[in-house]
Amino acid sequence: MQLTLHTDYSLRVLIYLTQHPTATISELADYYQLSRNHLVKVVNALGKHGFIVTMRGKGGGVRLARDPREISVGEVVRRMETHFDVVECLRESYSHPACRALPFCGLRKAVQLATERFLADLDGYTLASVVPPSVTGKSP
Amino acid sequence: MQLTLHTDYSLRVLIYLTQHPTATISELADYYQLSRNHLVKVVNALGKHGFIVTMRGKGGGVRLARDPREISVGEVVRRMETHFDVVECLRESYSHPACRALPFCGLRKAVQLATERFLADLDGYTLASVVPPSVTGKSP
Repeated sequence: MQLTLHTDYSLRVLIYLTQHPTATISELADYYQLSRNHLVKVVNALGKHGFIVTMRGKGGGVRLARDPREISVGEVVRRMETHFDVVECLRESYSHPACRALPFCGLRKAVQLATERFLADLDGYTLASVVPPSVTGKSP
Repeated sequence: MQLTLHTDYSLRVLIYLTQHPTATISELADYYQLSRNHLVKVVNALGKHGFIVTMRGKGGGVRLARDPREISVGEVVRRMETHFDVVECLRESYSHPACRALPFCGLRKAVQLATERFLADLDGYTLASVVPPSVTGKSP
């Protein structure tokens, strides 16, 4: 069970920006040793979802759009992850014929509730809370 | 975010066997319209983990090894899923260099706790509880 790398890298970008006022794609790629191309997509998506803003021109780069104490890990995961169809029967567009057990099987609901709980748990952490104040240099 | 198809199909096999005393691979493949080859692997793994037993010879097939009221969905997911490295930094054998934020970042712990909660939630459901008694013909 895992999140997509897209979500994983999104969290890393936001964690970096919680500690540094701004960053360029090159800086992020160097720091995390991640593909620049992949990071461009991640940064675009983070911008689209209102987590970061892009500053153009010389000395440009990206910065957090909101206070890191107000961005929860759960919110980032919910917005960046492509789907939460943890089991196949949760998919709306089914590649296979719909599972024959679907009409009477409670598994779908059970997994759905557990997934909601997983996300609610992550809602309890903010970017600022996962990076200790001693590193950010900000008060908690 | 999703479980592997291996785990997904494992749950379907066990759900079928909660409702039917025995089944053959062909019967399961027909019922769910799934690949026979994939189901052979799933059934072998379920046997290895003590969820089902194989009956050889004519009229053979598989059956549950334990009471469906004593097999939790959480236990099946824990045993059948290959890993719970929901974020990359949870992987022990890292394909990339270890994330540079690892020494001070609390994300890993947060995701780990949320995943444990997800599994603990699924521990609350047994095979018998996700298939209603009216279908199994068994009392709850």
